[in-house]
Amino acid sequence: MLREIKINAPLYEALVQHYHKNPRSFHVPGHRFGGGLQPPWNDYYRDILKLDVTELADTDNLHQAEGVIQEAQQLAADCFKADETYFLVGGSTSGNVAMILAVCNPGDMIIVQRNVHKSVLNGIILAGARAVFLTPQEDEKSGLSTVPSLQDVEDALERHPEVKAVFMSTPNYYGMAVDVASYAELAHRYECALLVDEAHGAHFGFHPAFPASALHAGADAVVQSTHKTLTAMTMGAMLHVKGDRLRKDALRQALAMVQSSSPSYPLMASIDIARAMVDTYGEQLFDGGLNAAEHFKNVMDQKAPAFRYLGEQAADSSLPWRLDPLRAVVWDGTGTLSGYELLKELERQGCWAEMADSKRVVLLFGISASYEDVEALAAVFAEIGKQHGLDTKNQINETRLSVFDQYRYDRISAPVILSRVIPDERSIETVPLYLAANRQSAELVIPYPPGIPVLYQGELITDGIIAVLTNLAEHGAVCQGIADSSLTSLRVYKKG
Amino acid sequence: MLREIKINAPLYEALVQHYHKNPRSFHVPGHRFGGGLQPPWNDYYRDILKLDVTELADTDNLHQAEGVIQEAQQLAADCFKADETYFLVGGSTSGNVAMILAVCNPGDMIIVQRNVHKSVLNGIILAGARAVFLTPQEDEKSGLSTVPSLQDVEDALERHPEVKAVFMSTPNYYGMAVDVASYAELAHRYECALLVDEAHGAHFGFHPAFPASALHAGADAVVQSTHKTLTAMTMGAMLHVKGDRLRKDALRQALAMVQSSSPSYPLMASIDIARAMVDTYGEQLFDGGLNAAEHFKNVMDQKAPAFRYLGEQAADSSLPWRLDPLRAVVWDGTGTLSGYELLKELERQGCWAEMADSKRVVLLFGISASYEDVEALAAVFAEIGKQHGLDTKNQINETRLSVFDQYRYDRISAPVILSRVIPDERSIETVPLYLAANRQSAELVIPYPPGIPVLYQGELITDGIIAVLTNLAEHGAVCQGIADSSLTSLRVYKKG
Repeated sequence: MLREIKINAPLYEALVQHYHKNPRSFHVPGHRFGGGLQPPWNDYYRDILKLDVTELADTDNLHQAEGVIQEAQQLAADCFKADETYFLVGGSTSGNVAMILAVCNPGDMIIVQRNVHKSVLNGIILAGARAVFLTPQEDEKSGLSTVPSLQDVEDALERHPEVKAVFMSTPNYYGMAVDVASYAELAHRYECALLVDEAHGAHFGFHPAFPASALHAGADAVVQSTHKTLTAMTMGAMLHVKGDRLRKDALRQALAMVQSSSPSYPLMASIDIARAMVDTYGEQLFDGGLNAAEHFKNVMDQKAPAFRYLGEQAADSSLPWRLDPLRAVVWDGTGTLSGYELLKELERQGCWAEMADSKRVVLLFGISASYEDVEALAAVFAEIGKQHGLDTKNQINETRLSVFDQYRYDRISAPVILSRVIPDERSIETVPLYLAANRQSAELVIPYPPGIPVLYQGELITDGIIAVLTNLAEHGAVCQGIADSSLTSLRVYKKG
Repeated sequence: MLREIKINAPLYEALVQHYHKNPRSFHVPGHRFGGGLQPPWNDYYRDILKLDVTELADTDNLHQAEGVIQEAQQLAADCFKADETYFLVGGSTSGNVAMILAVCNPGDMIIVQRNVHKSVLNGIILAGARAVFLTPQEDEKSGLSTVPSLQDVEDALERHPEVKAVFMSTPNYYGMAVDVASYAELAHRYECALLVDEAHGAHFGFHPAFPASALHAGADAVVQSTHKTLTAMTMGAMLHVKGDRLRKDALRQALAMVQSSSPSYPLMASIDIARAMVDTYGEQLFDGGLNAAEHFKNVMDQKAPAFRYLGEQAADSSLPWRLDPLRAVVWDGTGTLSGYELLKELERQGCWAEMADSKRVVLLFGISASYEDVEALAAVFAEIGKQHGLDTKNQINETRLSVFDQYRYDRISAPVILSRVIPDERSIETVPLYLAANRQSAELVIPYPPGIPVLYQGELITDGIIAVLTNLAEHGAVCQGIADSSLTSLRVYKKG
């Protein structure tokens, strides 16, 4: 019975009901239920614009929710086991920024892993916070980075008792998810909030095959992209809060600062629907996608044996993580095709991947990939293998370029004040990399691979960082968006 | 011929074409062209989700536009006569914040009128800028506020030669639009940028009946809500830039900070379509709405004579403004019904207004209101008039509560540092209003009417401000969201 009550989507239904009243609109938006849009441009918009309204007595107000939006958010909080859930119309971007604004007053300190989404850095900049960056751990086999070690977080907390929050990102883009329970416990022991960017894990916790969600593990606030792995429209996301380590007034203020004052109703209703789908179907919602993902690997083993993919980790690993089974990370085991080339080849044959790095492509199956989809995908891989003669080539030994571990540089940065001020040419100079020690970097340095920032604008350059960058440059890593992409020189602030 | 070329909507068409390739999606969003959404929840979403994709080779990238988004933005720039146009997926909110971030480094000074949208204040807070607030001028007849006088802006510029930008909002919510040409000239003479929030004026300049747009008048950057008066989906907006007073790198950085890294394609394509509609139909796009608006007033005069509405200003007025003919500001001339009551009565009879203040309702006709729409609306007004016996009552003399002008307080504030830090209870105290002079306000005070901030959090309380607040309180103005809504006391920061 409970389930039957829960399958309501109160916000969506309120929009439908409002439309069915045949209301005459003398308000924004200007298209007036789509009537203003002339053919042929209304082809795809005709239906959705019937729900594209504004704050009315029937439709509540996201920034002061007291009606159907509050109801929808409450149902989401129940579903995701949060104390409070906020719908986000600006994507996980807006949630990440808002979490940091809510916790950090200007000058406050926050611990952050280096491998975070840009929105986290933007949040730190806008908050005027000081960041202590922690180097993430690398998975031994794949070389992919997850989260910093518990020991490094504790050392950083010991070194900086004034820290307000620890910020983690998990799962990473490859679907590797770390259990944050011990991190939550640690943060709370030091009277800090644990904030988690779980953008890629909106489905976590809803099926035994999935990792647990960060909120269940004890995080204080968690951002999830409802559009990425559930069914919301793009930009639809949620912020879940548990406990009272985040001030609610500060959080509400922050959310109002970073989101539109005219939030999109079709977008918000699609978040409501995404939650209703989970409540209605439960585990079954994911069975189809899970079976397809499993089937994909079986077919690949048979038909495209040259390709390898990221598998679950050995149980005895020193760095435990679990794999999101609804995505596949695939690469050419012969080392012939780069990830970028693979992505292009897939596209050429009608299969569009989520992303590529220098080695791998990442593929999402989501909840609706079918057997037919994954068989077609595997057939394309097989075709690519044939075209490039991969099946007759030898598999290469997997060597991994260890980015951070082989040099004993401090995995805990000095506190950095990130600034959005674009450096004045007169205040900076270019120095050879080997002479950059103890200077303040004027650029953000993100070598590819591995795509993790080694140096932030404003960060003090240490000998350890120079060693890491030298190593990366020698192995052919490239940095886009900086003056010297070969990494033989750096732009630093002039002294004094 | 040119027009025929221009009616393309390249972004929209690229999405349609991509969908027609029958691509297999292994990427976000998780609904995969809507296939993941189960009935009945896909009723209104079925079509639009076919366009809800992510950054792909076919679909460009808003934050680094080089393909169809750049093309669409270039067509918009041509149409709106900008040097560059940026599509906004976070509404005018994101554009206002981005403009200020782009111009103001922390500590920089900006001149701002008091009656701005909250997003402007949020932009100032996030930028860490210092604001000099200017009191807007009041229209003599209606008492409604427009923009500060040219003289006050010049005085403020003289007083603070370090000012980086002047921020204006026009038209106001009532559709009163001021020509900013002389303000632009003034700002440029002082080497400042003129930034304009023209959220309600996306249609300006496209019909002789409309006021000119701020960009044509010489503003350096202008934000428009394409969804408010053109046909974009809610949250769709544009930022137009002309000249080089805004640094493009700073602007791009700011836009990436305040907008989702996964912007909605249906939203962006709807902005593209809105521009294509203007290019295709030209002036004719607005003829229907304009005729309906004109017809509305004629019918009202005949059928609902108790009601009055804001008309064009006398040509010899000392404060010139023009009225947006696509909206109507209506009130009960007998003074019986408040604006809020009127809004409720209209709703009860199926007509939904844009907003109400204590006296008036604001109604938007947009481009698609028909004769039938406005006749139905006028009939409802007539019915309300009958029910409340308004037609037999005397019209009251219009007295206007002069908020700012009758006290000789400084219309130019001292520079204020706005802070998002929620005041600690231990750092503030409550004092009677008459003892608040020379203290720093710990609250934002917005009396209704007129709904314009008289005091910002952090602003120094002057004798003039106390006089204004006393006057407002005596006339029954109420302040929501502060400790003492009756305005007999204020919360201020403790001394020292």
